[in-house]
Amino acid sequence: MSSSKPLSIAVLGAGRVGAVIAAELASDKNPFQVSVADVSERALSNPILSLVADKILLKGDDSSILESCIERHDLVLNCVPGFIGYKTLEQIIRLKRPCIDISFFPERHEPLDELAKQFGVEAWFDMGLAPGMSSIVARKLADYGTEKGTQCQDLDIFVGGLPVERTFPLQYKAVFSPSDVIDEYLRPSRIKRGGETVVVAPLTEPEYLEFEGVGTIEAFITDGLRSLVEFLDVPNMREMTLRYPGHKEVMWTLRELGFFDRNEVMTRDGISASPLAVTEAILGKSWNLGEKEIDRTLFLTRARYSNGETKEVRMLDEKDLHTGYSSMARTTGFVAVAVAEFFCRQMKILGPGVYAPERL
Amino acid sequence: MSSSKPLSIAVLGAGRVGAVIAAELASDKNPFQVSVADVSERALSNPILSLVADKILLKGDDSSILESCIERHDLVLNCVPGFIGYKTLEQIIRLKRPCIDISFFPERHEPLDELAKQFGVEAWFDMGLAPGMSSIVARKLADYGTEKGTQCQDLDIFVGGLPVERTFPLQYKAVFSPSDVIDEYLRPSRIKRGGETVVVAPLTEPEYLEFEGVGTIEAFITDGLRSLVEFLDVPNMREMTLRYPGHKEVMWTLRELGFFDRNEVMTRDGISASPLAVTEAILGKSWNLGEKEIDRTLFLTRARYSNGETKEVRMLDEKDLHTGYSSMARTTGFVAVAVAEFFCRQMKILGPGVYAPERL
Repeated sequence: MSSSKPLSIAVLGAGRVGAVIAAELASDKNPFQVSVADVSERALSNPILSLVADKILLKGDDSSILESCIERHDLVLNCVPGFIGYKTLEQIIRLKRPCIDISFFPERHEPLDELAKQFGVEAWFDMGLAPGMSSIVARKLADYGTEKGTQCQDLDIFVGGLPVERTFPLQYKAVFSPSDVIDEYLRPSRIKRGGETVVVAPLTEPEYLEFEGVGTIEAFITDGLRSLVEFLDVPNMREMTLRYPGHKEVMWTLRELGFFDRNEVMTRDGISASPLAVTEAILGKSWNLGEKEIDRTLFLTRARYSNGETKEVRMLDEKDLHTGYSSMARTTGFVAVAVAEFFCRQMKILGPGVYAPERL
Repeated sequence: MSSSKPLSIAVLGAGRVGAVIAAELASDKNPFQVSVADVSERALSNPILSLVADKILLKGDDSSILESCIERHDLVLNCVPGFIGYKTLEQIIRLKRPCIDISFFPERHEPLDELAKQFGVEAWFDMGLAPGMSSIVARKLADYGTEKGTQCQDLDIFVGGLPVERTFPLQYKAVFSPSDVIDEYLRPSRIKRGGETVVVAPLTEPEYLEFEGVGTIEAFITDGLRSLVEFLDVPNMREMTLRYPGHKEVMWTLRELGFFDRNEVMTRDGISASPLAVTEAILGKSWNLGEKEIDRTLFLTRARYSNGETKEVRMLDEKDLHTGYSSMARTTGFVAVAVAEFFCRQMKILGPGVYAPERL
């Protein structure tokens, strides 16, 4: 850092992941001035945020607070829910602030890349665990093939955050909202097969994997490759989500029965409601990983090369009982924090544009 | 029949079962004048009802049409949905008309028995397949023990109506509404165990049965014993519903996740809705057994006696392709029709009171 005045960072969204990111950036080992903003007073009062001096309560119907919050800071970390992620990143770019984004918005990033170049702004999106770290690891594994004079033929990314305690029927709890997780089970998933990009349904192609200390875990396709599909020259590529065996079946059943439909149904009492919205409210009751509950993150990227060689990168992370950070929030948030720290050294990595993690 | 004027019968409810009952009573082999009443014009236009001369369109907000319909007839068949069954039977008794009831209302019948004695009216309830025929068969099997100088120790009633074609995930369609079937999966179930009446959760104690020509079927506890629990002196008794393996798991999952809860939840968009009502609307879309779809009814009552002897009564029925009556509607409705015919011989069976089928 050349300037004597510390750099200021705004973290938008004090959800489970956003809070960990804000706390980490505000910790003693970092020289930043950190603000955290959210529409929820409860989220802002999370004890994890005790070191964050500036807490900004946003109002859904008053965008001026959000705007001035963005403008007052040197860098923005976009940690809002996926469904408002794109819109928020667009606003940040228009206000000419660099951004690290983990909102996992469903839209394509190309229009924002244009806009960022026009406004001279640098932004990095999908900067979580997967996509995020997974994309960086995948690129490394693909590059390894080229360096060795062979080619990566198959590349599978497996990733999942799970509670250690398995409670039926879901065997799942998360620090992410039901809407974000269900969205993963609904998004048509782009994979590479025989050199072609094909779109398949999520929750398909189940397979079992063994993880030492955990046991058998089920994997199924989700749409996690994102821009990697176009970026890497690997003929066969998939991103698979990991859950305890049984979870996929429940989610597939709910989807097939129509509980994830967005189109409203009319009840006998004349109430019109979206099945998906009601399902999210029902699941929300038992969904949230409690502050005291232990979770773990499983990560595996597996590459097979044309010379017959195989390589894999494995990670098994558990909740940090010292900081109280959940494993899911930590493995997602620490990638964003590392990239933010790296960006702040020069306030530049690649210059204006919106970049996917594999470009790092 | 002593009078020259034919007896008149009103069938309340032209649902899938009510329609078959009305059509059967109005057929050439019977001497009755039959009316059928429903709130749905569509239900009344069912081609099965072509021989029923008098169709009465009821209005939910005008009970006078229903009242005059009841009063104009010598006998009433109560085929309305379960949740308005009790109220309707009470009204019939107050209007002093005898009644055969298949509404399967959840309330206890004793208060209506009092009322019927007071008004001098005879009524029979639960007059379907199970409860209904099952109760009659169970009593016969219990009596058989006494006649032979032994005692019936265990008595299990297994019953289920199923589509022949099994479509995932439910593997179930019905001529009954989702609300009536889900209600069976929710009602605390009274069974007999070691001579005591105990209440257990429905969808429990799964076991597999083999049915020739069908294969393996799963059975689980539901609340079908009804008044049989008190009437029969058999120390161990259960009523089990039959479904294709896998169905119970889906229904148990929905129940455990909260999709059958009645208490309203609030969605993200601020809509307040009852999960159960929304679930019924969602399942309703694919629930209905089509007019051309083939269904079957499986029935088994199994008795074990203290002398080691066992006896069982089995029935496997399929849709009647000639009449077009579904098996579920036929096996449910024909019991009510037979009892109605029997009652009409003397316009009396046991005299004033409300009776369960095992009293027949």
